[in-house]
Amino acid sequence: MSRTASWCQDCLHYAFDYETPKTLVIPHFGVGFVFRLTQLLVVLYVVGYVCVVQKAYQETDSVISSVTTKVKGFAFTNTSDMDPLFWDVADYIIPPQGDHSFFVLTNMVMTSKQMQTRCPELPGPSTTCMNDCDCIVGLNDPRGSGIQTGLCVNYSSTVQTCEVLSWCPLEIDTKLPERALLAAAENFTVLIKNSITYPKFKFHRRNILPHINSSYLKRCEFSPSTDPDCPIFRLKHIVSETGEDFQDVALKGGVIGIIIDWSCDLDFWAGKCYPKYSFHRLDDKHRNVAPGYNFRFAKYYKTPDGEDTRTLIKAYGIRFDVVVFGTAGKFGIVPTIVNLGAALSFLSLVPMVCDWFMLTCTRKRDLYSRQKITHLSEDAEAELMSMGTAYGTQ
Amino acid sequence: MSRTASWCQDCLHYAFDYETPKTLVIPHFGVGFVFRLTQLLVVLYVVGYVCVVQKAYQETDSVISSVTTKVKGFAFTNTSDMDPLFWDVADYIIPPQGDHSFFVLTNMVMTSKQMQTRCPELPGPSTTCMNDCDCIVGLNDPRGSGIQTGLCVNYSSTVQTCEVLSWCPLEIDTKLPERALLAAAENFTVLIKNSITYPKFKFHRRNILPHINSSYLKRCEFSPSTDPDCPIFRLKHIVSETGEDFQDVALKGGVIGIIIDWSCDLDFWAGKCYPKYSFHRLDDKHRNVAPGYNFRFAKYYKTPDGEDTRTLIKAYGIRFDVVVFGTAGKFGIVPTIVNLGAALSFLSLVPMVCDWFMLTCTRKRDLYSRQKITHLSEDAEAELMSMGTAYGTQ
Amino acid sequence: MSRTASWCQDCLHYAFDYETPKTLVIPHFGVGFVFRLTQLLVVLYVVGYVCVVQKAYQETDSVISSVTTKVKGFAFTNTSDMDPLFWDVADYIIPPQGDHSFFVLTNMVMTSKQMQTRCPELPGPSTTCMNDCDCIVGLNDPRGSGIQTGLCVNYSSTVQTCEVLSWCPLEIDTKLPERALLAAAENFTVLIKNSITYPKFKFHRRNILPHINSSYLKRCEFSPSTDPDCPIFRLKHIVSETGEDFQDVALKGGVIGIIIDWSCDLDFWAGKCYPKYSFHRLDDKHRNVAPGYNFRFAKYYKTPDGEDTRTLIKAYGIRFDVVVFGTAGKFGIVPTIVNLGAALSFLSLVPMVCDWFMLTCTRKRDLYSRQKITHLSEDAEAELMSMGTAYGTQ
Repeated sequence: MSRTASWCQDCLHYAFDYETPKTLVIPHFGVGFVFRLTQLLVVLYVVGYVCVVQKAYQETDSVISSVTTKVKGFAFTNTSDMDPLFWDVADYIIPPQGDHSFFVLTNMVMTSKQMQTRCPELPGPSTTCMNDCDCIVGLNDPRGSGIQTGLCVNYSSTVQTCEVLSWCPLEIDTKLPERALLAAAENFTVLIKNSITYPKFKFHRRNILPHINSSYLKRCEFSPSTDPDCPIFRLKHIVSETGEDFQDVALKGGVIGIIIDWSCDLDFWAGKCYPKYSFHRLDDKHRNVAPGYNFRFAKYYKTPDGEDTRTLIKAYGIRFDVVVFGTAGKFGIVPTIVNLGAALSFLSLVPMVCDWFMLTCTRKRDLYSRQKITHLSEDAEAELMSMGTAYGTQ
Repeated sequence: MSRTASWCQDCLHYAFDYETPKTLVIPHFGVGFVFRLTQLLVVLYVVGYVCVVQKAYQETDSVISSVTTKVKGFAFTNTSDMDPLFWDVADYIIPPQGDHSFFVLTNMVMTSKQMQTRCPELPGPSTTCMNDCDCIVGLNDPRGSGIQTGLCVNYSSTVQTCEVLSWCPLEIDTKLPERALLAAAENFTVLIKNSITYPKFKFHRRNILPHINSSYLKRCEFSPSTDPDCPIFRLKHIVSETGEDFQDVALKGGVIGIIIDWSCDLDFWAGKCYPKYSFHRLDDKHRNVAPGYNFRFAKYYKTPDGEDTRTLIKAYGIRFDVVVFGTAGKFGIVPTIVNLGAALSFLSLVPMVCDWFMLTCTRKRDLYSRQKITHLSEDAEAELMSMGTAYGTQ
Repeated sequence: MSRTASWCQDCLHYAFDYETPKTLVIPHFGVGFVFRLTQLLVVLYVVGYVCVVQKAYQETDSVISSVTTKVKGFAFTNTSDMDPLFWDVADYIIPPQGDHSFFVLTNMVMTSKQMQTRCPELPGPSTTCMNDCDCIVGLNDPRGSGIQTGLCVNYSSTVQTCEVLSWCPLEIDTKLPERALLAAAENFTVLIKNSITYPKFKFHRRNILPHINSSYLKRCEFSPSTDPDCPIFRLKHIVSETGEDFQDVALKGGVIGIIIDWSCDLDFWAGKCYPKYSFHRLDDKHRNVAPGYNFRFAKYYKTPDGEDTRTLIKAYGIRFDVVVFGTAGKFGIVPTIVNLGAALSFLSLVPMVCDWFMLTCTRKRDLYSRQKITHLSEDAEAELMSMGTAYGTQ
């Protein structure tokens, strides 16, 4: 036998000899029971909690979404301040086309026929004056309404204020109607079309579910209990679901979230993926700090002689934000392996627990200890050495 | 030797004595082979699948993004219904500035010179009448066009309908042109500027890549094969990539997603992070349920004598939603540890498999079993006890 | 004893006998020290890095958010090109209401009194002509300004260009004012209201923190050092925080991100969840490729004789994108188990390291090896067999 061949054989032995721990079997019911019980608890946790409750064997992905909305309805207003007016979608939805957000005008302060000219400031602590010396030419006070011209002029028969260069007449936004102008907006309806994708799973879906047909869509109206799949919502119902009163919100405006939850379990044995709608008021309903929701916009006109004039509208209303969120889960090999592996680690703790129990709590602990644990013995070793050659090459 | 010192020594022994399992080496090629093979399989899985394919050693972060779009192009329309008209960006992009979404008007029903007045309803099952009794004063029917005045008037020489208070003349939106008015929109181009951030990795990038210069940007046009990096898209091309025909979609409108995938591997040895564009129709192309995309808006005018008049436009067109998504991955110590740890757990299963194989499938299983497993022996113990003192302090 | 009972007892023995490895205690300080040290390192890693630094015991969720913005301020312009003009919110915010994005007009090229008619093209290499033959009837050149009528007409006394059908007079956008028209916009302020939700944890919060009252909100202004919680921002300050000069950006426009980071640790012992604001320029500030931000919009008018006319505005300005992001973490049982489990796996590596150290690096390695490792011995086995019956039932 050559030395190379021998060396190879050694290598093979080193690679393929199997080294296994020597074990001691202890026929003690208590210890065995503790052992099986802890094993069972770990397995139960893995199967029950991790797999069934938390679905930790799933990969997840976040939703990407596209929303279109279409409001329907009209209103007729007839107040003392204004001419009788008819309002349709083109009048009360501003801007006319939004993506995941739309604004319904419900109340307003309208200031017509504004032109770039001079007029007396609205009376206030910093704007009333006795004579021209109280007014500073060119002063641009952010709390004021325009650039001061330096003159002090009559605002009314009793009050004098500084004159400003601005869009005149000035807006007087304290005269907000006490009842929302477009109170009828509560009966408007909105059709929300939502299309989502989970890109990792190449999964597309729309909130107009396959079983919804055209005739159902014409007459249905969302209701959590009776029509949870209908994508047509009555504004009054949306607001009342948030716990608010429509007329209250309509008066000063507000922001309402229409929340669509697309949380889905995409495993074929689950196979359910439907939108769940909920509603939530997003602005601060406690009225003390910057309450409500409003913004200003203007319609611009030219007078017949070519001068610019505008109608300024301070628009109060409800902005509806369609908030789409969701996480889809689907069986994935990596999370499964990771979670099983982590649980297996705990199984490897079980013998440690049982050994401790066996060596401290059982009656025969000294016996078990002696048979399980050998202390290194140099005497026995010397003895063994003398016997060593009998064993053959090791 | 004092008792305290002795106690300390005991403690040290307890802390630093090393307890190691006694093992048995079995020179059986079959068992050894199974052992090494299963070890190899686990290692292969970890290296091959978890690390290379799934990149499970990476931390991930979601993209945050900002988009600006700029459409170019103009069209000229000359139909029998309308005066010849020239259309530029300011005319057909509504609203003029969007963020991740822009709307291109392609077809429309225009109703000019509407004023707040009274006119007969459009004929229909619920609006035709014989006399005033069929019409209810103040009725606000959501399917109608206005508030009924209670009168029954001539709509045409043959049909009588209830009179309504509304913006008159009423819109007749059934007369949609059969060919899209702005068919020329297919040749418009859009420049999309997209800036993204992965906040966890402090990584910023733009879709106008560093190697793109101004002159290239002036003449390039996106094409998946020849110009995949050019951020200028021809609308016709976008629509055709979704599998649709531009003129079909232009007729009734639609929603098209321009999807930018920023999935990136940010590890320095990968170092590639480019946007990938794809296109997807987002609305329901099966025309039966609420098909297409349209909305109404109005342009408001004052007549020379100060009365309000408006031009109502029911705008059909294509809304392009720029949808940016992506996940960046970068080497992270925690996911690496977790995945390696989980795989190690499986390595600890390997001996269990081999032991089972050894003790049930090999010829010499009884021999192996006897040498590996000791059964607790109280007799041997008694014998051992008598020998015990010879061992020295235990 | 019946056979069934015996079989049952065997089963019970199989299920509840406890099999534990036989171990060898080695009183060697070096090995023991290595053992305890590596154990300590693993535990330190788990406690220190995974738990404290990375908070890997937490479940995470992504933020969903709703934003409203309100800009305040006005400006007065008095340039040679235009009449003196007063600008308020309704004039310079376009569109008037946005959600997470608002645009402030800072500079513009205004082209008044455009009508649909014919006029000579702007002079340029492809538009100058000598006679009608150089112009093609119906040519629709994307780089031009309209549809060519086929005539060559005088643009000025020296230059002849092709006549086009377009909105005339044509816009000359090269005459951009050298100083931003609304330079005063730097002193405008914006109130940002942001409401966020972490749906998984049912956690809602607003950026107007509970301790902010109405009077503070009236006078405060955001400052990273002194007022980090005030939701009112001065535009100039936002821009300067990005490292840019407001007047520079205002001239040609730009896109600025107002980034709100809601990263939160929701565990009760952490309990802090406040927005952190930062600012970042999102468009390409290197001016060579498609610099700045602008778009065109038009105001439409009717002349007294009913013809359409418009004022075209090429609006340069700053778009502020409010980008909300964040991840909330909260103690979760599954990630805790997974991370602990993975770390435990590493603990199971420790004995392997120590065994290797013991069997290769210590002086008494032969002694340890002989006592730890038994080689399967068929001779000893034969001997053992003969003694076997003395052991009792096995």
